[in-house]
Amino acid sequence: MNTNDNIDQLCQRFKEKDKIALAKLITLVENDPSSASKIFKDFNNLKHDSYIIGITGSPGVGKSTLTGQVAMTLAEDGKKVGIISVDPTSPFSGGAFLGDRIRMTKITCHPNVFIRSLATRGYAGGISRAVFDITLLYEAFGMDIIIIETVGVGQAELEIHNLVYSTVVVLVPGYGDAIQIQKAGIIEIGEIYNINKKDLGGEDIAVQIELMLDDSTITQSGWRPPVLMTNSITGEGIDELIEKIYEHKEYLELSEKIKIKMKQRYMYKIKESMVDTIEKIIFERIFNNNELNNIALKLIDNKFDIYNELKELYYHIHLKIKKDD
Amino acid sequence: MNTNDNIDQLCQRFKEKDKIALAKLITLVENDPSSASKIFKDFNNLKHDSYIIGITGSPGVGKSTLTGQVAMTLAEDGKKVGIISVDPTSPFSGGAFLGDRIRMTKITCHPNVFIRSLATRGYAGGISRAVFDITLLYEAFGMDIIIIETVGVGQAELEIHNLVYSTVVVLVPGYGDAIQIQKAGIIEIGEIYNINKKDLGGEDIAVQIELMLDDSTITQSGWRPPVLMTNSITGEGIDELIEKIYEHKEYLELSEKIKIKMKQRYMYKIKESMVDTIEKIIFERIFNNNELNNIALKLIDNKFDIYNELKELYYHIHLKIKKDD
Repeated sequence: MNTNDNIDQLCQRFKEKDKIALAKLITLVENDPSSASKIFKDFNNLKHDSYIIGITGSPGVGKSTLTGQVAMTLAEDGKKVGIISVDPTSPFSGGAFLGDRIRMTKITCHPNVFIRSLATRGYAGGISRAVFDITLLYEAFGMDIIIIETVGVGQAELEIHNLVYSTVVVLVPGYGDAIQIQKAGIIEIGEIYNINKKDLGGEDIAVQIELMLDDSTITQSGWRPPVLMTNSITGEGIDELIEKIYEHKEYLELSEKIKIKMKQRYMYKIKESMVDTIEKIIFERIFNNNELNNIALKLIDNKFDIYNELKELYYHIHLKIKKDD
Repeated sequence: MNTNDNIDQLCQRFKEKDKIALAKLITLVENDPSSASKIFKDFNNLKHDSYIIGITGSPGVGKSTLTGQVAMTLAEDGKKVGIISVDPTSPFSGGAFLGDRIRMTKITCHPNVFIRSLATRGYAGGISRAVFDITLLYEAFGMDIIIIETVGVGQAELEIHNLVYSTVVVLVPGYGDAIQIQKAGIIEIGEIYNINKKDLGGEDIAVQIELMLDDSTITQSGWRPPVLMTNSITGEGIDELIEKIYEHKEYLELSEKIKIKMKQRYMYKIKESMVDTIEKIIFERIFNNNELNNIALKLIDNKFDIYNELKELYYHIHLKIKKDD
């Protein structure tokens, strides 16, 4: 049996809602980007939209427990939920402590929930490539809600914001003052702010965020990000969080801004894929490693020449890439 | 006075070891990548190599305090130290708590130490572009040691490993078991493992790492990464950490592997810059935003068509990028 037969059979079982087939297809797209085009070629007549939520925040703010609670509540309500966890410190991904993982087991066993965790690197074409393909598989599988849990520390993680419709930014009491929130670059992306571990306080940070929102033009768009407080261990505040997510969904749908969000998802995917392809062409066909190697060797003794060397390379690239007029 | 005059004057003051000029040049290269080529064009006759160290780990492991202690010890020993902090939760970058920041003030005021912190996003051309340019400025300024402190969570952060000679991976007791360390993707990059907060234990994790190193082919390269324990608050173990960094430096120099590390730095920089340039050419000259926008709009109703659309785009890219034979 060759790989294509295998993919066809898996797709068949996938369409019959076989979770093992889903798991196997995810592994395929994770490890081999080219398999995605084979898988999705037969999905054209499938019409299904999932609502895609991002939950982001620094390690240790309780994102995973929160994600688990939200997923559990939705699942109990009859919704099918697909989770993608991109956080090396998440209990889903194998991080965190035993207590968390025991709590997580309850969720992973729920028939309405499917969880996939990704490492934060090593993916051909990058994390967001893998995340995009998995959301597409979840949509085809008929998930009502997709939750992408990411650690909001680095650049790559924040970019996952481009792939979701509602971004929940999770903070904790003691996170710091307004300047730190701004520095971390998360104040621009939140559609909902959620202060977790409310048993430790957090009213001060809520006020800080509200003040920042007062100053911001974001609020003129018609949606003022609410600032919520939860305790993800006890489940306190989870219902309100879900309610606000649905409110944001309704806002996007009524204002037709959901179309913009959807378009943005594809736009991001297209641009990322193109950059990836172009990179390959450049390094495999236009410049060989030896040429670049020799330039790098020269730089060991002339490091400040780097920009002169780059200028020459750019010149060659310009020569080789021609614009049709 | 135009910008070029300004740059020339700043470079003059920079060469006279004016720290304000250094700070201003850093701001220039941070905000405007094109200024780097103007700045470095007159640096050709400067011959100075700094030794470049990376200190990485998850938020909360005490990287900044450790970096501060290492820098302080080196500075007291007469070394000139340049620090680049790429961590939104670092006290250098404005994160963390007041106590840390007060501790940090002592270091920032030392005449032999210069600190620059970067946000983790928003840089034209990416974080590592900015980091590279700043190391180059530090080298030109005559720093003996450059320390790059990064949060080791995301992909972009781990890539900074390519820009340093010795990578110190910081862990803490309770971080978890061997599988988690492997998952986080840090076991491949450490040249020195440092378990901080040793007052909380950590012997177990040290054993785990040693076992992993026993299994690893990394140790056949001639350098077995040592596993150290520190308490960055009290300063315990800092001297040994510095000693091991110097041992690794000596190992690289005697084996001439330092040349490979240096070459890797430039290679990384060249590749990154080229991808950046090509991206610009592609999106500004080959495809306009309208074309891509229209494709994205079509996908809203036919999302599983994405890979067919991409195939067509790839085909156009191939047509437009021609290889000279």
